[in-house]
Amino acid sequence: MRIVIIGAVAGGASAAARARRLSEQAEIVLIERGEAPSFANCGLPYYVGGVIEQRDKLLVAPAQRLMERFRLDVRTRTEAIAIDRANRTVRLRYLENGDEYDLPYDKLILSPGAAPIRPNIPGVDLPQVFTLRELRDADRLHAAAKDAKRAVVIGGGFIGLEMAENLVHRGMATTIVELADQILPPWDAEMVSPLAAHLREKGVTLKLSNAAEAIEPADNGVVVRLRSGESLEADMVILSVGVRPENHLAVNCGLAVAERGGIKVNDQMQTSDPDIYAVGDAIETRNLVDGTPAQIPLAGPANRQGRIAADHIFGRSTRFAGIQGTAIVGAFEMAAAMTGLSEKVLRKAGTPFEKIYIHPANHAGYYPGAKQMSIKLLFEPDGGRLLGAQAVGRDGVDKRMDVLAVAVKAGMTAFDLEELELAYAPQFGSAKDPVNMAGFVASGVVRGDHPIAHCEDLPQQPGANGELVLDVRMTGEFAAGNIPGAVNIPVDVLRERLGELNREQPIIVYCQVGMRGYIATRILLQNGFNARNLSGGYTTYKQVTAARQNAG
Amino acid sequence: MRIVIIGAVAGGASAAARARRLSEQAEIVLIERGEAPSFANCGLPYYVGGVIEQRDKLLVAPAQRLMERFRLDVRTRTEAIAIDRANRTVRLRYLENGDEYDLPYDKLILSPGAAPIRPNIPGVDLPQVFTLRELRDADRLHAAAKDAKRAVVIGGGFIGLEMAENLVHRGMATTIVELADQILPPWDAEMVSPLAAHLREKGVTLKLSNAAEAIEPADNGVVVRLRSGESLEADMVILSVGVRPENHLAVNCGLAVAERGGIKVNDQMQTSDPDIYAVGDAIETRNLVDGTPAQIPLAGPANRQGRIAADHIFGRSTRFAGIQGTAIVGAFEMAAAMTGLSEKVLRKAGTPFEKIYIHPANHAGYYPGAKQMSIKLLFEPDGGRLLGAQAVGRDGVDKRMDVLAVAVKAGMTAFDLEELELAYAPQFGSAKDPVNMAGFVASGVVRGDHPIAHCEDLPQQPGANGELVLDVRMTGEFAAGNIPGAVNIPVDVLRERLGELNREQPIIVYCQVGMRGYIATRILLQNGFNARNLSGGYTTYKQVTAARQNAG
Ligand SMILES: Cc1cc2nc3c(=O)[nH]c(=O)nc-3n(C[C@H](O)[C@H](O)[C@H](O)COP(=O)(O)OP(=O)(O)OC[C@H]3O[C@@H](n4cnc5c(N)ncnc54)[C@H](O)[C@@H]3O)c2cc1C
Ligand SMILES: Cc1cc2nc3c(=O)[nH]c(=O)nc-3n(C[C@H](O)[C@H](O)[C@H](O)COP(=O)(O)OP(=O)(O)OC[C@H]3O[C@@H](n4cnc5c(N)ncnc54)[C@H](O)[C@@H]3O)c2cc1C
Ligand SMILES: CC(C)(COP(=O)(O)OP(=O)(O)OC[C@H]1O[C@@H](n2cnc3c(N)ncnc32)[C@H](O)[C@@H]1OP(=O)(O)O)[C@@H](O)C(=O)NCCC(=O)NCCS
Ligand SMILES: CC(C)(COP(=O)(O)OP(=O)(O)OC[C@H]1O[C@@H](n2cnc3c(N)ncnc32)[C@H](O)[C@@H]1OP(=O)(O)O)[C@@H](O)C(=O)NCCC(=O)NCCS
Repeated sequence: MRIVIIGAVAGGASAAARARRLSEQAEIVLIERGEAPSFANCGLPYYVGGVIEQRDKLLVAPAQRLMERFRLDVRTRTEAIAIDRANRTVRLRYLENGDEYDLPYDKLILSPGAAPIRPNIPGVDLPQVFTLRELRDADRLHAAAKDAKRAVVIGGGFIGLEMAENLVHRGMATTIVELADQILPPWDAEMVSPLAAHLREKGVTLKLSNAAEAIEPADNGVVVRLRSGESLEADMVILSVGVRPENHLAVNCGLAVAERGGIKVNDQMQTSDPDIYAVGDAIETRNLVDGTPAQIPLAGPANRQGRIAADHIFGRSTRFAGIQGTAIVGAFEMAAAMTGLSEKVLRKAGTPFEKIYIHPANHAGYYPGAKQMSIKLLFEPDGGRLLGAQAVGRDGVDKRMDVLAVAVKAGMTAFDLEELELAYAPQFGSAKDPVNMAGFVASGVVRGDHPIAHCEDLPQQPGANGELVLDVRMTGEFAAGNIPGAVNIPVDVLRERLGELNREQPIIVYCQVGMRGYIATRILLQNGFNARNLSGGYTTYKQVTAARQNAG
Repeated sequence: MRIVIIGAVAGGASAAARARRLSEQAEIVLIERGEAPSFANCGLPYYVGGVIEQRDKLLVAPAQRLMERFRLDVRTRTEAIAIDRANRTVRLRYLENGDEYDLPYDKLILSPGAAPIRPNIPGVDLPQVFTLRELRDADRLHAAAKDAKRAVVIGGGFIGLEMAENLVHRGMATTIVELADQILPPWDAEMVSPLAAHLREKGVTLKLSNAAEAIEPADNGVVVRLRSGESLEADMVILSVGVRPENHLAVNCGLAVAERGGIKVNDQMQTSDPDIYAVGDAIETRNLVDGTPAQIPLAGPANRQGRIAADHIFGRSTRFAGIQGTAIVGAFEMAAAMTGLSEKVLRKAGTPFEKIYIHPANHAGYYPGAKQMSIKLLFEPDGGRLLGAQAVGRDGVDKRMDVLAVAVKAGMTAFDLEELELAYAPQFGSAKDPVNMAGFVASGVVRGDHPIAHCEDLPQQPGANGELVLDVRMTGEFAAGNIPGAVNIPVDVLRERLGELNREQPIIVYCQVGMRGYIATRILLQNGFNARNLSGGYTTYKQVTAARQNAG
């Protein structure tokens, strides 16, 4: 049995190693057009930035090791240029000399990844313009970064952000240009506005709702012309506007390919030809939460899919259960993470959902160094099944997102989060962990004990829709900044001052993060008022407002 | 309706706050014999150590706040001394003046906590001997620590370890005396031997399998006489040998109490008297994993149980699903965490189980600062249902334990861990996260692809039971230290050197952490050898050996 694998990195190398463990007999050929197999794509930005100092750290499993340990036939600098399904052969070209030859296969695994999208604008091919996917790209960027002082990053997705951090680390004046009205478009805007603020604090200039329309050579580097009319001078430009599946081999040999370009596969990673598997960034799979088609290019799924393809070849019964899009990106001291469906996806699909915001500390407040984070939970209004979660903050964001990712995977509800038993000591969490807290709040909403409102429910003009906005913080907090038109009655004296309120007028209550607002809401409800609590309070309000300002 | 709550800290204050949110009408009386309600028990060691600098940080919700915000009738320095169930009254004594009075209740919630066990040895009442449970205890310790130079901590459980860290932080020469042959008795010994080594590195002296038999006054402090015959001079002695439920009120009024002293309750925290609830450290509940009775005194469950008691009073349907014993303790830069059942508990119960060990890095190895941790997974040999997990290491231990805790709670199997989709970027994890890795290994074992052995399976004497012990690491690694009697054939040349091995002789293979050993095992199995992989490899071997040495 000969297994030929095209693409020798996350999905491909994982498939190869697993196949060898399952079979000493199989002949396993790993085809890679780049110079090295099995490198750390995800480390490239940090190599460019000098955070990872030694280049050879990027070579996770050098060819030599794959050959010795796994007896893989590793053919680098070799490109697969065509698949002949009828004859079960792959046409290969050795890039060093252009020689071509056919290699027969019994099973073929495609893990060619995805290619950076190169926007069709003038100047995109200038030597100062870079993309980042391969080792070679990183080498070029690494070299260019030595003398560069000003950088423009086109695209504020996770690679764009990581690049910006690293370019700043190298001392460059860095600007991110992003078409969307927010950074990290898969996230909901208000959940990344704190990260946008943090990037700005670190010296990164953000140009949102904007686009590069041309890149022109200049005396001294290039000039990037923006749709807004502005021009940015730069020594280097990084394109990070997304990727598209490397599907041409698949398309050319007639495999089924989805509309957005991903190769179609079943749960065992077989394409429409059962002898050909496809994994990783090149495929379309389905979203675990709602079953819709999904193309989410991330390393974890690619690795596991590679393993599943090998499993299926050798009769193991693992199956890919779908992707939930769990992702995290760090930038300076902050991180943003998400899992499952976002609000914007839910809205677009017309799926009924409710959301809550909390702003807990990463660990017990009485222990030094506690840092506030923000968590958004999306769930079904009936029954509370979790649909997705997002978080932004400093330490501990990754932990909460992993916990929530498992909860989503397990099909848990908000009620289940109430009862999670997580590890608590003061340095690590709270007796009521942020995830429990999210569960308490969401459960209260589902149970009907905790009616909530959101920023989009606030009157456009103070008093516009006849609703009263009631700030229940201390007078000092109120004075330091509040929602226009709000009236202030601190929660601790609310019971005495109910007479100042009108039972006929609906009330939106808020406080700093939502806790006092919730207590006030409970007091009001039980006294016959019509009240809702602004979820996440003034903190969420500020994040939403900042997101709107970012959007221009 | 009047709700009387005895004990105003984790369980009691949580019940009170929740009750108020559910009912503005109820009269809620919070009885506390200490000086303050709602303090941070878990912060006390860090206050003694000076890590938490301001005492008022310990007062999580001061009485004033509870009165103003929640309209609780907070009665501190007031002890409940008897319950009259027939008349539904509690007898209270105001400790400032000894005055007693009866307070009628409609619903009573007991959250009196647990009392430190004071071993019955001479000298235990000397002024230099302390326990740590209440604020007052912390004040005394805080004051005594000012001049103390030498401390003895009796009991190496989590409070003992936290105290030791904090006393070292205050500059004291600190010795822990522990009866068991390991620190942290709920953990399995080999999973805490790295932490024991770390404590020693930080200057803590450990006396394991030992006991204090007497404490005697000395010219200059006290002398602690040990069972081993040694004597330890000390300026202060801390007793932390465990707690027992504060059950006398319950016992005296005839409520059902379990053998080990915990008050019996149902899933809604009702005692044998449906108008009396009990929560927290004072109760017996049941283990979520195996349904056996459990008394695990931790803050998270106490808080949630308090909330459930209030819920039941006001008709909400939350239920306590059982406790899984998720716990973590930090000591200096390390942490040990666990969830579910330990190996020793499984062995004692005669429950069939299998276990695996892995030693992954907390994040991608190519990103600077990766730290190795050790994870042990316990699962059912058939089907792979998770039974428990333990971890020890530096950064990231808390995260993996929380993920595993959710998996245990969800009733997941090893196979489910393979497919968890966790948040990956190089600073936070790996494309195959440690938890996935644990899933891969355990699944391989359950599937039969990965036969394993454990240290207890190794021949007592080299060659004793006719099994070959095969070290597949590089020759340099082998030379630097190996299992006595082992033969060395590096995995990368094993295929060529199979001729040196005997198909009739069973082989236990090992490497540094288990990965190469697994590959070698696969090679051997597929070539007709009878081979098993030593789970966790030489690293686990060293941890087991260290644990045996600790045990003396
Ligand atoms: C800069 C950067 C940072 C990233 N950071 C993260 C992160 O933090 N977290 C995360 O989860 N994901 C991250 N990713 C994404 C992650 O690297 C990918 O999801 C993952 O590598 C996809 O695996 P794959 O096997 O599908 O493709 P790849 O790993 O890209 O491998 C595909 C390989 O196939 C080769 N190839 C393609 N076509 C052919 C052909 N015809 N013949 C021969 N060889 C061919 C390519 O040269 C390439 O080496 C990052 C990606 C990049 C580029
Ligand atoms: C030093 C220390 C460190 C800890 N660290 C951690 C940790 O890191 N993580 C963790 O999960 N857990 C930790 N714990 C355990 C945690 O604090 C307890 O599990 C939790 O507080 C139990 O809550 P409870 O309401 O049952 O009892 P408690 O919080 O102890 O409250 C009981 C209260 O009842 C009062 N009381 C008792 N009897 C009467 C009476 N008859 N009349 C009036 N009042 C009465 C007591 O004075 C006490 O204040 C720690 C405990 C200590 C002591
Ligand atoms: C301080 C104490 C009185 C708090 O009780 P509490 O008000 O029930 O708990 P929290 O302050 O954690 O708040 C939780 C409540 O706020 C709500 N909440 C939390 N964040 C919210 C937000 N952003 N928006 C709206 N509501 C929010 C939750 O839903 C929950 O209410 P619910 O129980 O009605 O659902 C009690 O936990 C205590 O005494 N703790 C200290 C003692 C202790 O635990 N010691 C051991 C550990 S050191
Ligand atoms: C390096 C690479 C070839 C490794 O492939 P791999 O051997 O399948 O994966 P790992 O090294 O993570 O090892 C996993 C295997 O070791 C086993 N294992 C892990 N720890 C073990 C232990 N302590 N004891 C025994 N076995 C262990 C697992 O069970 C698994 O084997 P299985 O799949 O047969 O169950 C591949 O993942 C790769 O190329 N990675 C780099 C590229 C990349 O992922 N880029 C994107 C992210 S930067």
